[in-house]
Amino acid sequence: MRVRLDIAYDGTDFAGWAVQPNRRTVQGTIEEALATVLRLTTAPRLVVAGRTDAGVHATGQVAHVDLDLDDDVDFVRLTRKLSSLLRSTPDVVIKGLREAAPGFDARFSPLARRYEYRLLDREELRNPLVRHRTVWTSAHLNVELMSETAATLVGLRDFGAFCKPREGATTIRELQEFTWTRDETSTLIARLQADAFCHSMVRALVGACVEVGSGRLTLADLGDVRDAAQRTSAFKIMPAHGLTLTDVIYPTDDQLGARAELTRAKRETTGNGSDS
Amino acid sequence: MRVRLDIAYDGTDFAGWAVQPNRRTVQGTIEEALATVLRLTTAPRLVVAGRTDAGVHATGQVAHVDLDLDDDVDFVRLTRKLSSLLRSTPDVVIKGLREAAPGFDARFSPLARRYEYRLLDREELRNPLVRHRTVWTSAHLNVELMSETAATLVGLRDFGAFCKPREGATTIRELQEFTWTRDETSTLIARLQADAFCHSMVRALVGACVEVGSGRLTLADLGDVRDAAQRTSAFKIMPAHGLTLTDVIYPTDDQLGARAELTRAKRETTGNGSDS
Repeated sequence: MRVRLDIAYDGTDFAGWAVQPNRRTVQGTIEEALATVLRLTTAPRLVVAGRTDAGVHATGQVAHVDLDLDDDVDFVRLTRKLSSLLRSTPDVVIKGLREAAPGFDARFSPLARRYEYRLLDREELRNPLVRHRTVWTSAHLNVELMSETAATLVGLRDFGAFCKPREGATTIRELQEFTWTRDETSTLIARLQADAFCHSMVRALVGACVEVGSGRLTLADLGDVRDAAQRTSAFKIMPAHGLTLTDVIYPTDDQLGARAELTRAKRETTGNGSDS
Repeated sequence: MRVRLDIAYDGTDFAGWAVQPNRRTVQGTIEEALATVLRLTTAPRLVVAGRTDAGVHATGQVAHVDLDLDDDVDFVRLTRKLSSLLRSTPDVVIKGLREAAPGFDARFSPLARRYEYRLLDREELRNPLVRHRTVWTSAHLNVELMSETAATLVGLRDFGAFCKPREGATTIRELQEFTWTRDETSTLIARLQADAFCHSMVRALVGACVEVGSGRLTLADLGDVRDAAQRTSAFKIMPAHGLTLTDVIYPTDDQLGARAELTRAKRETTGNGSDS
């Protein structure tokens, strides 16, 4: 039976999502807890929607796992047992476990992923209660100019300037939304949505806006960098702790299988194995 | 010269505000940093508006300190030096240093203190990113009933049922505001304002509302407990980490000295040495 997990975590004390030997990872923590609760001798393997880097947070992460469960398994009880086991590590929360709809694949079914990035450019407003998910900068930033910059990056294009290159992998993505707002605490919040993001792409896109918003790079020069679609030193990859995966958007249940097949076919053609 | 400090901190890793031998405290951390920046051989002593317990946070704490400074001292530069020194301990932030207005006393001049308390009663909505300042409960709570309860506690009265007794100290306070709202993340937020709070009073008031909101205590029974004004086991003192001191309200500059004198006179009459 394929089971869908909805997950939230504070990435501060994790070496990222993906299992690594001798490192505390989100995937490893959950897989071990599942093995304990279900009394499995080998930990089951999770497949995730958005593999996040060390320090990156998630409020709306989704994963699936194939388990040998009875048809009448009590998911409320199973969720509670898993949550209770994870209570000693409250930086990861299992929001819910449920049987996945037929054709559901956490990694290949999504239509889109959404991320938020938080940045504060006012020293006198630094709030230690949100320091683990807000990047503090000393440069004052022009949010209108950053919004303008973000708008020039939206669209279906080659994001080669914003992606860590991977052998044989495409850097073409569809950035569907990229906006900046200043919230009531004066924190700058970027909201981004794309069909998929390549590795470190959100942090590079944010870095490009910061460069323009602080006056160190013109919008015209960034346009050239964007169009060249080559790795660049024109802007910085921003720190991980400002970044949160907030949503994974799936199609309606009847479209899950078709969407997964389409994504898989696209990835095979282009050799793109990365998914976030 | 009397200097006013505006301070924010995440209380998680502090043994409270007040200096204690061999414990990491907010007061101790700031006093040491001040001594380093000003090259003093003995640390100056801070006087604070709201002495917070271990684990309690603050976004709007205020303190004063009397320092031997030149009249033309550059406070922007001094704030920056202090902040830079405290950068290695980002759980405390000095939002600003400035010369205090004549008659200003951080502890005795306030008209009122404001606190917030955060509580989440929905297991599936637990967000690990705010776990250090939100108390998670498993009981579902009736927010309308909690608001009704809070309204019955507002006023000038003897809060003996909600105060840790102190030899010879009055438990009469004026609770000027106490409301409950559910925010967009379904978190229950209590907002309280009083001229001053006695020790653990906010956490006791919140505990009383939780008891009524979960159906374990009737509003009528709580009314009796309130009127008896004696220590009680009818409700719990809630955990510290849900509590944040958000604001200290001072009168206009021309009223600072008069207000401090009035407060001091009241405290001397009643023998009340506690200020929060």
